[in-house]
Amino acid sequence: MSDPRELYPRHAVTDLRADGQAALEWSARYLERVGELPVLAQVRPGDVRAGLPASAPEDPEPFSALLEDLDRILLPGVTHWQHPRFFAYFPTSASEPAILAELLAATLNSVAFLWRTAPAATELEGVVLDWVAELLGLPAGWHGHIEDTASTSTLTAIIAAREATGRDLVVCSDQTHSAAEKAARMLGMKLRKVPCDDVFRLDPAALGDLDEAAVLVATVGTTASTSVDPIPAIADACERAGTWLHVDAAYAGTAMICEEHRWAFEGVERADSLVVNAHKWMLTPMDCSLLWSRRPSDLRAAFSLIPEFLRTPDSEDALSLSEYGPVLGRRFRALKLWAVLRCHGASGLRAHVRSGVALATKFERWVGEEPGWELCAPRPFSTVCFRLQGDDDRNRELLDRVNASGEMFISHAVLHDRYVLRLAIGGLRTTEADVAQAWDVLRREAAAL
Amino acid sequence: MSDPRELYPRHAVTDLRADGQAALEWSARYLERVGELPVLAQVRPGDVRAGLPASAPEDPEPFSALLEDLDRILLPGVTHWQHPRFFAYFPTSASEPAILAELLAATLNSVAFLWRTAPAATELEGVVLDWVAELLGLPAGWHGHIEDTASTSTLTAIIAAREATGRDLVVCSDQTHSAAEKAARMLGMKLRKVPCDDVFRLDPAALGDLDEAAVLVATVGTTASTSVDPIPAIADACERAGTWLHVDAAYAGTAMICEEHRWAFEGVERADSLVVNAHKWMLTPMDCSLLWSRRPSDLRAAFSLIPEFLRTPDSEDALSLSEYGPVLGRRFRALKLWAVLRCHGASGLRAHVRSGVALATKFERWVGEEPGWELCAPRPFSTVCFRLQGDDDRNRELLDRVNASGEMFISHAVLHDRYVLRLAIGGLRTTEADVAQAWDVLRREAAAL
Repeated sequence: MSDPRELYPRHAVTDLRADGQAALEWSARYLERVGELPVLAQVRPGDVRAGLPASAPEDPEPFSALLEDLDRILLPGVTHWQHPRFFAYFPTSASEPAILAELLAATLNSVAFLWRTAPAATELEGVVLDWVAELLGLPAGWHGHIEDTASTSTLTAIIAAREATGRDLVVCSDQTHSAAEKAARMLGMKLRKVPCDDVFRLDPAALGDLDEAAVLVATVGTTASTSVDPIPAIADACERAGTWLHVDAAYAGTAMICEEHRWAFEGVERADSLVVNAHKWMLTPMDCSLLWSRRPSDLRAAFSLIPEFLRTPDSEDALSLSEYGPVLGRRFRALKLWAVLRCHGASGLRAHVRSGVALATKFERWVGEEPGWELCAPRPFSTVCFRLQGDDDRNRELLDRVNASGEMFISHAVLHDRYVLRLAIGGLRTTEADVAQAWDVLRREAAAL
Repeated sequence: MSDPRELYPRHAVTDLRADGQAALEWSARYLERVGELPVLAQVRPGDVRAGLPASAPEDPEPFSALLEDLDRILLPGVTHWQHPRFFAYFPTSASEPAILAELLAATLNSVAFLWRTAPAATELEGVVLDWVAELLGLPAGWHGHIEDTASTSTLTAIIAAREATGRDLVVCSDQTHSAAEKAARMLGMKLRKVPCDDVFRLDPAALGDLDEAAVLVATVGTTASTSVDPIPAIADACERAGTWLHVDAAYAGTAMICEEHRWAFEGVERADSLVVNAHKWMLTPMDCSLLWSRRPSDLRAAFSLIPEFLRTPDSEDALSLSEYGPVLGRRFRALKLWAVLRCHGASGLRAHVRSGVALATKFERWVGEEPGWELCAPRPFSTVCFRLQGDDDRNRELLDRVNASGEMFISHAVLHDRYVLRLAIGGLRTTEADVAQAWDVLRREAAAL
């Protein structure tokens, strides 16, 4: 019997053991030296593309050629999210056990659209979401699953809310992440932005009538200043109006594993849905956004659509997670979160959060004590908003200079109509020396303005 | 200066080199022995969960403990998508270079929501989409980017179509993938299903008035029978009505790299958008859905929303892919597709497609020549629809028996109101011996009915 492989050679020359050894060594070396690379990529738009051929190769190339081009062409165009002085947006670290779990997940290549197509991926996802829910102090019995990003988790919650309430209005604050506004636009829903108080918390007195509101998106740890909306008062208003309460704790949710931060989750037990991104502060690589709901039947009502080709004998008694969200095909994302939880342990995750908060507290004190600088918002977690006294342009120029140095990377926000700098801590490899160096660079570049 | 790492030990005991070596060996051994494991997981709902603790561990555990539990608890609950006799749905293989690329992508942990946050990931994504577009014979200049799954790619196209046309109706056929109906439901849009002809192709004569239609979803390679809708006639109708034409070639699109299949893409150059899943027949692990559009400005109009915190000096001249789709955070998916294209080469991918088609052609002939069996649809690519003569229950029972054997895994469809079996070929490791074994098992179990 002829083997079509002989007729048509189709296997890559890649050897998983030998080439894998080289890939692993590349990864280990990368993590050892990432702190020496410029944090923000120093290329110009088009540089990376210009280094690559216009067409795919006709014949197979060795994996070693790919590793060479990774160093030569791609690496100069990488902004290093794993760098210990990545302080922009919200840092996200991929820790070693999770990196290896991604290798294993790709090896298995499970596609979890039905329970039967991936029982282990489906059930492990439920288990690790239960584990994290317990660590965060959520009530028992919430249904949790993984979406790619908070954009999708929030979209999912809004769709379920529209289906459950029959209403067409999304309410959020002027500090809510743009994902809520984008979801409303994608869904053709109306949007109302509620003003915030002086420290960037949604002002319940300004909520207005919620009778038309399908969903209110509240935030624990807003994107700009990490402020915490007053969830209990918001929950009261939502309950009175029959409005779905979705809580976005994409960044700050991870901090709830520490008792001293649990105040920020007061009232969250009354939310209808909640998103926490494991790929932000929980050491899990992109993408791994955790979505819980205490109304799983509403999610299922909104998303379950089982066509004939997916009807199976076990449909009746086994949970298929594609019935709880927008997409059908789902990769084995739970494996990397399981690896993080097992190999760091709850104690390791708490230590990671506490380290970030301790470093941010120090940085906040340094800025607060330095003449010519000012703090611009309360700092509940590991993100400090600050600025150089003077006009916006001066701060904008400072940001460009420190980022161009390659020594650190920070981003900005606009608070009370002023341009402010944001230093967010969350990297696994960030030490006090890194934060001290960032402060040195900031003062050096400010002096040179 | 005290290092908070000393105050709070937070690093996992995992060592990327030593534990990585074990993970790599696990992967290599898995791929060597996967053909000996039962294809369809033989566990009952709840079995995997029952093997796992109720809570996360308090203290860090070694990575070796995770590998042990992967073998002991998870593996029995894995349905093996990498198995050479996985013939259900549409098979998807993760080839070795792509598996290693996922390790590298997790190591870099790039988050490509803006060009500047990941120039290499952003530009490589554009380059590999251009490479694949050329291999598929698409017109030059289409904009391509990667979404997680075809569910999201089709949702993206439908949102852009609604924005571009101001209309509220989705039109598809009764053979279109359920993702179109689910998208319409999520978006609160109306849906019209057009009947098909005798061989499961959308019947243009039955299209009706498209003047209210925002988008028509046509398919090259439908989910049930892999039929090919008559794109040229459909494109005519869409152009007359000003309706967006979205073509779903999630499975069959990969075959267009071979000239002999290019007939199926006639007229696709007139589509407004097109989806092909690299994670189906293109040897790329989940998830990697390729979405092209010749109307990128309409995608940008629908999805671009740049809040203050994402405004950067280079916003003006650099393309940020989050402006072209629903989500903000994007992982470095292009790396694995690049690895596939480089390490298999265009010739290797063509050989892979031709091998699958050659094997399906043989299987089709075996079934067609066997008394008591019948073919149920034309076979344009690598998927054969067939049945045992007799009633639906007999075929349903046969399906259950062959899948319970663990020797092979097939799925079903309903065509012309009859329950039919589907054998789809696409695995990298599938040989003629595997297809012959499947045919033996089918006849053996049919005889035992």
